[in-house]
Amino acid sequence: MPTSSWQEQVADKRRRLQESLPKEWLITPPPDDQLNRMDVPETCGLLTPRELEITNKADVAVVLQKLASAEWSSVEVTTAFCKRAVIAHQLTNCLAEVLFDRALRRATELDGYLAKHGSVIGPLHGLPVSLKDQFPIAGLETTMGYAAWIGKVATEDAALVQLLDDSGAVLYVRTNVPQTLMWGETHNNVFGRTVHPLNINHTPGGSSGGESALIAQHGSLLGVGSDIGGSIRVPSHFCGIFGFKPSSYRLPSYGIVNSLEGQEIIPTSIGPLSTSLTGIKLFMQAILSKEPWRKDPNTIRASWDANAYALKDRGDGQKLCFGILSSDGIMTPQPPVQRALEETKQALLRAGHAFIDWKPLKHAELVANARSIWLSDGGADYKEALVTGEHLINSMDPEADPMDVPVFRRPRDPLSAFQLWKLSKERSDLRKEYLDYWESTAAMTGTGRPVDALICPVAPYPAVRHGQTRSSFYTIPWNTLNYPSLVIPVTRVNPSIDTKPTRSEFLSADDEAVYNMYDPEHCSGFPIGLQIVGQAYQEEAVLAVGEIVMAALRTQ
Amino acid sequence: MPTSSWQEQVADKRRRLQESLPKEWLITPPPDDQLNRMDVPETCGLLTPRELEITNKADVAVVLQKLASAEWSSVEVTTAFCKRAVIAHQLTNCLAEVLFDRALRRATELDGYLAKHGSVIGPLHGLPVSLKDQFPIAGLETTMGYAAWIGKVATEDAALVQLLDDSGAVLYVRTNVPQTLMWGETHNNVFGRTVHPLNINHTPGGSSGGESALIAQHGSLLGVGSDIGGSIRVPSHFCGIFGFKPSSYRLPSYGIVNSLEGQEIIPTSIGPLSTSLTGIKLFMQAILSKEPWRKDPNTIRASWDANAYALKDRGDGQKLCFGILSSDGIMTPQPPVQRALEETKQALLRAGHAFIDWKPLKHAELVANARSIWLSDGGADYKEALVTGEHLINSMDPEADPMDVPVFRRPRDPLSAFQLWKLSKERSDLRKEYLDYWESTAAMTGTGRPVDALICPVAPYPAVRHGQTRSSFYTIPWNTLNYPSLVIPVTRVNPSIDTKPTRSEFLSADDEAVYNMYDPEHCSGFPIGLQIVGQAYQEEAVLAVGEIVMAALRTQ
Repeated sequence: MPTSSWQEQVADKRRRLQESLPKEWLITPPPDDQLNRMDVPETCGLLTPRELEITNKADVAVVLQKLASAEWSSVEVTTAFCKRAVIAHQLTNCLAEVLFDRALRRATELDGYLAKHGSVIGPLHGLPVSLKDQFPIAGLETTMGYAAWIGKVATEDAALVQLLDDSGAVLYVRTNVPQTLMWGETHNNVFGRTVHPLNINHTPGGSSGGESALIAQHGSLLGVGSDIGGSIRVPSHFCGIFGFKPSSYRLPSYGIVNSLEGQEIIPTSIGPLSTSLTGIKLFMQAILSKEPWRKDPNTIRASWDANAYALKDRGDGQKLCFGILSSDGIMTPQPPVQRALEETKQALLRAGHAFIDWKPLKHAELVANARSIWLSDGGADYKEALVTGEHLINSMDPEADPMDVPVFRRPRDPLSAFQLWKLSKERSDLRKEYLDYWESTAAMTGTGRPVDALICPVAPYPAVRHGQTRSSFYTIPWNTLNYPSLVIPVTRVNPSIDTKPTRSEFLSADDEAVYNMYDPEHCSGFPIGLQIVGQAYQEEAVLAVGEIVMAALRTQ
Repeated sequence: MPTSSWQEQVADKRRRLQESLPKEWLITPPPDDQLNRMDVPETCGLLTPRELEITNKADVAVVLQKLASAEWSSVEVTTAFCKRAVIAHQLTNCLAEVLFDRALRRATELDGYLAKHGSVIGPLHGLPVSLKDQFPIAGLETTMGYAAWIGKVATEDAALVQLLDDSGAVLYVRTNVPQTLMWGETHNNVFGRTVHPLNINHTPGGSSGGESALIAQHGSLLGVGSDIGGSIRVPSHFCGIFGFKPSSYRLPSYGIVNSLEGQEIIPTSIGPLSTSLTGIKLFMQAILSKEPWRKDPNTIRASWDANAYALKDRGDGQKLCFGILSSDGIMTPQPPVQRALEETKQALLRAGHAFIDWKPLKHAELVANARSIWLSDGGADYKEALVTGEHLINSMDPEADPMDVPVFRRPRDPLSAFQLWKLSKERSDLRKEYLDYWESTAAMTGTGRPVDALICPVAPYPAVRHGQTRSSFYTIPWNTLNYPSLVIPVTRVNPSIDTKPTRSEFLSADDEAVYNMYDPEHCSGFPIGLQIVGQAYQEEAVLAVGEIVMAALRTQ
């Protein structure tokens, strides 16, 4: 039994985190009124030109090539990213744990291995990889933002940690999450709030918001998050990076800590976030090459499929047809999101591809089904983690009374196992309807195939102020359906073209709120991403299509 | 609302089934004291020599070749199997529905197609395929043995039905099941009891017991069943045929009627039963070639893997190492089952393969976990189907008072959704332990690989008297673990060598009951099958290994 209060334990944990940051890497914090901190890592003077050269690279393939050729040592690359991560943390509070000793030991080993054998140890040789605070590493605590989990030291690595080690990755930080993980923002009672590097009054998203803030600042080029309703995709969109939610059980989640453990009807997928699409692809290839089903009994036995990635069954990707979802009929996307869709559409047309307008099919029902399933425990899962007296966070709004429970956050009555089975059946029926709908588009695409992928918003807005995210209506349907979804950065808010239209009719109260929230000047320069969505288990095709879309956007 | 009692509805359904059997195919029933009816189809005089030649074939590949070459027409093959199925039904009560008009229409179409195009319409062209009474076909009732479901006419085909149609299969009968499906025997209040063709006082197993009785009598060469705890495998073993339970979601189950619908933690797998291993393999290849994921949203996107089937990563199967599980430590197998294991072991050694003794790891826990999950609704699922006043069958023993509930069949208290999540987590942890155990055998096999497959009993006894089956301790663990399992027929009870040993110490009350039950003379000639078990999603490898084991057994 802990002899101290949860507040004391939290204070101690924060102190230990602070002390684990090398003193020489501490900077003078920017003034509170410097809301945009994006350029601080470059300008603070702490990073050497060489370290800036290394960490400013966005393309993970390039970094891996330089590591493999020993042009850069893993020790210097790791040191650079440790340093930049510490700077990023001081600007956005994005870290939960640092593992610098372990990282530098491993980097040294890897440099030695390369020197001795003349070849890399694995596909991610020498690359620092960050982890959301859900991946236990033997000998370390994983608190996942719960005071009660302070001091819980893991005896074993999560399956993914072992596979990353085997791949030659260097694990060096774990990143912050929201309490319970079931939020699109990032704040908990242990580590506090993670903020957006472009404006500290805004959220970097969640639940993988520590990752997105860190990666946006190039404190990491590749990290691992998890996504049950948008938790990789919303932060990727908010922060202008790439993020990928694979289908369930394509990547190994065994051994992670999580909310709603054992809930498998619409489960958590783990997946990568990165500064580059090569980072996403190389991560998927690396993990799948390590046969994750030998470590995680629930991971399906499906290697990287080179033919699917080459789009062999889609005319090698020469002429694709996309479904473009401009609105889910619940919340109209704000103007910059609409422009991102329009620019993508035009770029694809210019590149010789086609599209059809994609009407949403029962998206509200897909979201309602997921929420009913996730809340079916009546809050019992959270309660088990709040035994210390730590309060449940009921709002992400810094001004809100944390004890005041808004309607949408009220716990529901617990369901019976039998009721849960009924919801599972409902989910399968919704999946079947969507599948039939998708397959039926073969008659309209002109390619002889159903649409090759959907393109749609990630959220109806760019990164919002803390506490202002709405339900993730644009991301949850793909979890309910088990569809892989890739987020790509498409554009940035430009107030001179993304002007606010006059509107007086709204689809819903949420729609009106999203409209009212939009202020082009305020979010000027904020990133806008889009989702590229495939059918279940089409991970390789979605990544290949993502490359095609990125190429089309680059040449516009 | 039905205006008649459930008993009247059942009487009407039975009358309709009886009337759907062509009068000219009715035989004089054998006397009640003729317990063994296996030779009646051959001797009753109803089948022509040509029909006997056709239906006596066991090898599905041979039949398909004769159909493809038009040496046999689909109409004559279908007619022969319709006829033999009706005979088999009169001997064992194995059918629930006949579809002869539909079948002959389809056979005629297929013959026409072949004549016109000179090629087959699909991989199962012209072959009659039987279905367990779980696969709805548009326009037909599917009662699954529930009185309340009489008159429920399907508006759509189950996904598998569509794929079989596309493959050129001819669907002609549906076969009997136990009420609730959750039994290793076959009896319900609508159609009554299915009996074993070798001894009508014995069960053909369950829940796919209509299939196994029909196929054992060559009233079908290939049928489709389902298995949540042994429901394909136990009947296959009891009846001396092949049966295959794939991993979950490898084959499409969307649109079937089922018990415990929406229960996905340890779900039902559909799979084939056949007179031949070629039947099993060709069924798997046929369905997978039709991309079942385009019809069933939960089927994983995994085509037939020719490399896995060729055992490319196992030295082309030249030298394999098996784990042989002789006893689960709960119920000692009866002597003929032990002999089947020993003969298989010796045959494999002679063929150049190796084995290690496989100690069971937490098999009782694997079974307990599954039962807790399946019973977590507190019986609510059954109650929904028993609204007519039809009673729940509490024992398969014909002498038992059907209203008397034995201890093991008593409903449990319903669990909450949260408790179900905990059981799901427990299942994953059990799976992980078993995976690690299996992987650890790489150090002992001498091949550098973990064991290539396990070989173990299907049940500790051959087909038992009605009401005498015990919990399926030898089959359920592979459902909990999601491992594919193939049943092959290995030998038959031989009283002169399978003598009853003297034993006075027992592992459990069940173990003692299994010992006491054994009477070599009584079950003389009964088939003994064994399971060949692979790791999750290793369907192709398990079938290839099955062929190797069968070849070794043939040359002993």
